[in-house]
Amino acid sequence: MFKFKLTERDNLTSARVGLMCTPHGTAETPVFMPVGTQAAVKALTPEEVCEAGGRVILANAYHLMLRPGAELIRKMGGLHRFMHWDGVILTDSGGFQIYSQARLRKISEEGVQFRSHLDGSTHFLTPEMAVEIQEKLGADIMMCLDECAGYPASRKEIESSMQLTLRWAGRCRAAKKILDRALFGIVQGGMYPELRSQSAEATLEIGFDGYALGGLSVGEPKSMMMEVLEHTLQQLPEDRPRYVMGVGAPEDLVECVALGADMFDCVLPTRGARNGLLLTRRGKISIKNARYQDDESPVDEQCQCYTCRHYSRGYLRHLYQAKEILAMRLNTLHNVYYILELMQGIRLAIRQGNYAEFRREFYNLRQEGLEEEAKRAAL
Amino acid sequence: MFKFKLTERDNLTSARVGLMCTPHGTAETPVFMPVGTQAAVKALTPEEVCEAGGRVILANAYHLMLRPGAELIRKMGGLHRFMHWDGVILTDSGGFQIYSQARLRKISEEGVQFRSHLDGSTHFLTPEMAVEIQEKLGADIMMCLDECAGYPASRKEIESSMQLTLRWAGRCRAAKKILDRALFGIVQGGMYPELRSQSAEATLEIGFDGYALGGLSVGEPKSMMMEVLEHTLQQLPEDRPRYVMGVGAPEDLVECVALGADMFDCVLPTRGARNGLLLTRRGKISIKNARYQDDESPVDEQCQCYTCRHYSRGYLRHLYQAKEILAMRLNTLHNVYYILELMQGIRLAIRQGNYAEFRREFYNLRQEGLEEEAKRAAL
Repeated sequence: MFKFKLTERDNLTSARVGLMCTPHGTAETPVFMPVGTQAAVKALTPEEVCEAGGRVILANAYHLMLRPGAELIRKMGGLHRFMHWDGVILTDSGGFQIYSQARLRKISEEGVQFRSHLDGSTHFLTPEMAVEIQEKLGADIMMCLDECAGYPASRKEIESSMQLTLRWAGRCRAAKKILDRALFGIVQGGMYPELRSQSAEATLEIGFDGYALGGLSVGEPKSMMMEVLEHTLQQLPEDRPRYVMGVGAPEDLVECVALGADMFDCVLPTRGARNGLLLTRRGKISIKNARYQDDESPVDEQCQCYTCRHYSRGYLRHLYQAKEILAMRLNTLHNVYYILELMQGIRLAIRQGNYAEFRREFYNLRQEGLEEEAKRAAL
Repeated sequence: MFKFKLTERDNLTSARVGLMCTPHGTAETPVFMPVGTQAAVKALTPEEVCEAGGRVILANAYHLMLRPGAELIRKMGGLHRFMHWDGVILTDSGGFQIYSQARLRKISEEGVQFRSHLDGSTHFLTPEMAVEIQEKLGADIMMCLDECAGYPASRKEIESSMQLTLRWAGRCRAAKKILDRALFGIVQGGMYPELRSQSAEATLEIGFDGYALGGLSVGEPKSMMMEVLEHTLQQLPEDRPRYVMGVGAPEDLVECVALGADMFDCVLPTRGARNGLLLTRRGKISIKNARYQDDESPVDEQCQCYTCRHYSRGYLRHLYQAKEILAMRLNTLHNVYYILELMQGIRLAIRQGNYAEFRREFYNLRQEGLEEEAKRAAL
């Protein structure tokens, strides 16, 4: 069964710590979920994700229905067995991917027709099928099929898209068959607070195991995103997990947690790593920079990840320049470790009642990093 | 200090087991050396290579002098520290890579002028510099700079190239400064047994810590390669390691060992893995094949590698099709494990005096694999 229990609350902010129990173990929230779109966290083994502190990974129904197929994965014993991951799996329904990756989408009341980004083949996906696919995959947490309108968009577009998402949410809820798995509703409404409120209210009325905020981080200014987030999170019930989809830059995590968010996913740590972008306590660095070529220090002096324990920035730069696969591995391992350790720090701080101090320290270190950079640039 | 000691001899063949002691540990021969051209075994960590049974890796002076530079690696504490590998490192001088990868080579008595395959920049490499570069890298075993004539080539070309290689070998020998590292000479002579004999004799006269056979597996028929190998290995002293360069298909290893070879390197297990070619006791399989899409069995039922313990062929096919980096990792891990386990089996069989039986069993399993394939095809 899926259960969510709040265990601690911060005094000064809306930050909270909770336990999310699923058929594949328990995860403490706030939780960052590494992205494993195609049934693999890019460049990492499940053991590495687990050792870095990962408890929940995110897979994608859109990608997996197209390749290798949901029915094939079901026959092979489900996604957990297929990909050798015993922890929690949340699957995204594919709404966002159809919006961003598929071609020639045609949306109707019944569902969405689209062409595969892989081979151009035509597919039709209904809310009912989205749930069926996720049940075949064996996800612990499933997401409703939603329609994502993007940014910028007119109020009218957003409203009609939000209303469609609500009708689809009701159909998803009705289609769910497997009792011990969770289904989350997705609150839409673009950058319009009233629409977000309407969407939240109506989604709550249908009733889900958890509530997600969709349609964020789609090109809007960050301040706008944070305002919408703050407004919308307040509309959600205390006793259900709140998932901010697609958000996961370190500073966003720190802020969203303060607003009361519990779950996050983002390709930034993994995709960034593959592009040589490394996260550190003092801000991010681009390992391709020639200044690192003879740098004997690790990516982050305080980091205890495998990469930082054994390799210099100079070596990582060499691997990146030489296009070695090991570069992607070591970079990804570090970034995922960094983000998961950040989440662990966040949870600990909330439990100890000093989240405000944690945030201050987080920004202080980044500020120090910026000042060092400025000094370097002035030399 | 570098030392080589023969510990066992097979009764029926020329196969032998020995111990090769170096400043970075001891390796038992016959040994397969995974290729780490650019200071990384492609897709693997040093720990993974070691856990798979790897004791010696091969790096390449040509690649490393161009990027990141031998002097930089020296400053960073040498290749072992740079790449976090405590085991033995053998560096190839770059002769073969200049022949196969560099552009606009101009060979003179003094050395070779070439253009980098990376940026077209012009470089000049002498035998003395080749040794100096390998000493800067900190290799345990260095290779003389040789000239590789390729196949087919006239007797005249081969002879003059072989004579140049000999003069360069003398200069390499004289240039070596660091006493506790080993320098190997390379026997050339193309497919001409008399030239191979001449080259072996003259190389022996200069005197090296070990002897390599170069200019093989360059396009000649396999039977010709094996004949030249058999002939040449007989010219080499018993008490020095014999290194067959660039050879490493499973059946070649089994045969070359029987002829008395001790050391091997080959990109086949690693490059093949990245192309979906997996080695098994019953022969190789191409994991891209659609027949594996719902195959729940591991790559090789008897294999104890991480990949075979946890993943199905169906999943590996999916990862390959989806171009996931994890595909390269899991495939490489398996192939390297397979080859290193094969070598371990070879050494054990020689020690136990049943190498003939080992070979028979090796071919029997492959034959069974072929027969299964024939049956499948007939269905």
